[in-house]
Amino acid sequence: MKESLISFIKEKIEEYNYRGAVVGVSGGVDSAVVLSLCVQALGKDRVFALILPERDSSKDSLKDAVDFCERLGVEYRKRSITPILRKIGVYRLFPPRLFLPDSIVKRYVLNRWNTLSKDPFLDDLRNTGPEEFLKGLAYYRIKHRIRMCLLYFEAEKRGYAVVGTTNRTEYLTGLYVKWGDEAVDIEPIMHLYKTQVFELAKEMNVPEKILKKPPSPDLIPGITDEMAFNMSYLELDRILMKLEKNEDLSDEDPKKVERVKKILELSEKYRRDIPITFDRI
Amino acid sequence: MKESLISFIKEKIEEYNYRGAVVGVSGGVDSAVVLSLCVQALGKDRVFALILPERDSSKDSLKDAVDFCERLGVEYRKRSITPILRKIGVYRLFPPRLFLPDSIVKRYVLNRWNTLSKDPFLDDLRNTGPEEFLKGLAYYRIKHRIRMCLLYFEAEKRGYAVVGTTNRTEYLTGLYVKWGDEAVDIEPIMHLYKTQVFELAKEMNVPEKILKKPPSPDLIPGITDEMAFNMSYLELDRILMKLEKNEDLSDEDPKKVERVKKILELSEKYRRDIPITFDRI
Repeated sequence: MKESLISFIKEKIEEYNYRGAVVGVSGGVDSAVVLSLCVQALGKDRVFALILPERDSSKDSLKDAVDFCERLGVEYRKRSITPILRKIGVYRLFPPRLFLPDSIVKRYVLNRWNTLSKDPFLDDLRNTGPEEFLKGLAYYRIKHRIRMCLLYFEAEKRGYAVVGTTNRTEYLTGLYVKWGDEAVDIEPIMHLYKTQVFELAKEMNVPEKILKKPPSPDLIPGITDEMAFNMSYLELDRILMKLEKNEDLSDEDPKKVERVKKILELSEKYRRDIPITFDRI
Repeated sequence: MKESLISFIKEKIEEYNYRGAVVGVSGGVDSAVVLSLCVQALGKDRVFALILPERDSSKDSLKDAVDFCERLGVEYRKRSITPILRKIGVYRLFPPRLFLPDSIVKRYVLNRWNTLSKDPFLDDLRNTGPEEFLKGLAYYRIKHRIRMCLLYFEAEKRGYAVVGTTNRTEYLTGLYVKWGDEAVDIEPIMHLYKTQVFELAKEMNVPEKILKKPPSPDLIPGITDEMAFNMSYLELDRILMKLEKNEDLSDEDPKKVERVKKILELSEKYRRDIPITFDRI
């Protein structure tokens, strides 16, 4: 698989007149795999990595992102988007953290997240919930959209492509920000389930530290992917694969299967069917 | 047509759990039509208009946008995105205008636009051109993307939909910014050619002043849509409609027909086929 993805990136960069690739590096496994693929496909001199933390980002992930870029010898820039988000007024939506330790902020956020909605991920998908919950959606979504703007700004100046890091599990379940992290030119791992990305990451010697970390969009302190899904990636991918191949699901937890079906239905409608047009164009 | 678009907007707002509509108003005919449709579909109390000028925006269009919102009695906010673009460093790409009059800036831009590329619009579509031309693409494209971020920020806080203003001529020819003005929730006029939007605008009493203005994305001083196409909308739409219905084109200018076909081919590949994925998902 690795070799075919490397040639895929190489071919598409050539075919679409791009001169290289820009990758947003978060310190997570998906972007680590995509950055490695791009370096092997184009050589490190035609790859530019952007690390875009902000006030709420995990310091640990930031360090992992910088370390990984240095390990690959890729040109990178670390730029905080906090000043831009502050200029827009994003942080006025929620009280300043002041100097509260991470653990307290995380507990506060988790508590609010669970009291504002019986099922935050489903409400997120269908844009429903009390005002404070909707403010929370606006609060975290603009972060990935601003990142998209900066990735494209750096890419288009250079005539580079923005290469995306969305995997199949995220795409099918809608675990991405509309017009945010899914807004890219080339998606080399969008056909791979998260668990398959982990396999590829091992094959590509992504550091153990990145592999071991619980996957998180790092948008809201303390909220991980598996918390949103209410199940592990292992279980989720297993159910997704069986659903896709119409295989027998009787040995799966029926409640989890129902939840996955509901997530697929909502993400189809609220993520992929957008924009809604009057006529099929 | 007007009545069916009004019910379309009403139905989709309801069906997708939105509480209202946010519209980006530029002072042009498309956004004037869409704002009017939304007000008639939802009532002005469930419509919020955002006017987002910046350093290079036409003062005249800004005034038209404000006047039109006041005429419809819609709640609107005028917010310059210049400080945000400045914070990002966008204006560092090109020399400050200082206090040069519009006419000189426009002549300078037009001169650069034509010397940097033999066919700026086609080069824009296929992301090719000398470095300064690519910097020009990055310079203007981020403006619409930042506008998209702010439209969604205001919309998602309220649980509103972002209603788009892209018409069919723009969609087919690629005259929009990828992940910028096309990134919306609902597109009520994307099936209407520009000339049809003008008809609808007359029906909806859009002021003569807006109707008479040469359509422009108002991203680069002095550059209008018809300059980019190198033909009038009348001629362009006529050719597009005939191509779509496989009608006889012998009474059209063969060079213009070839150009339209080239534009359609490039915009299909470089606008609508993005993102490029390894496998059809």
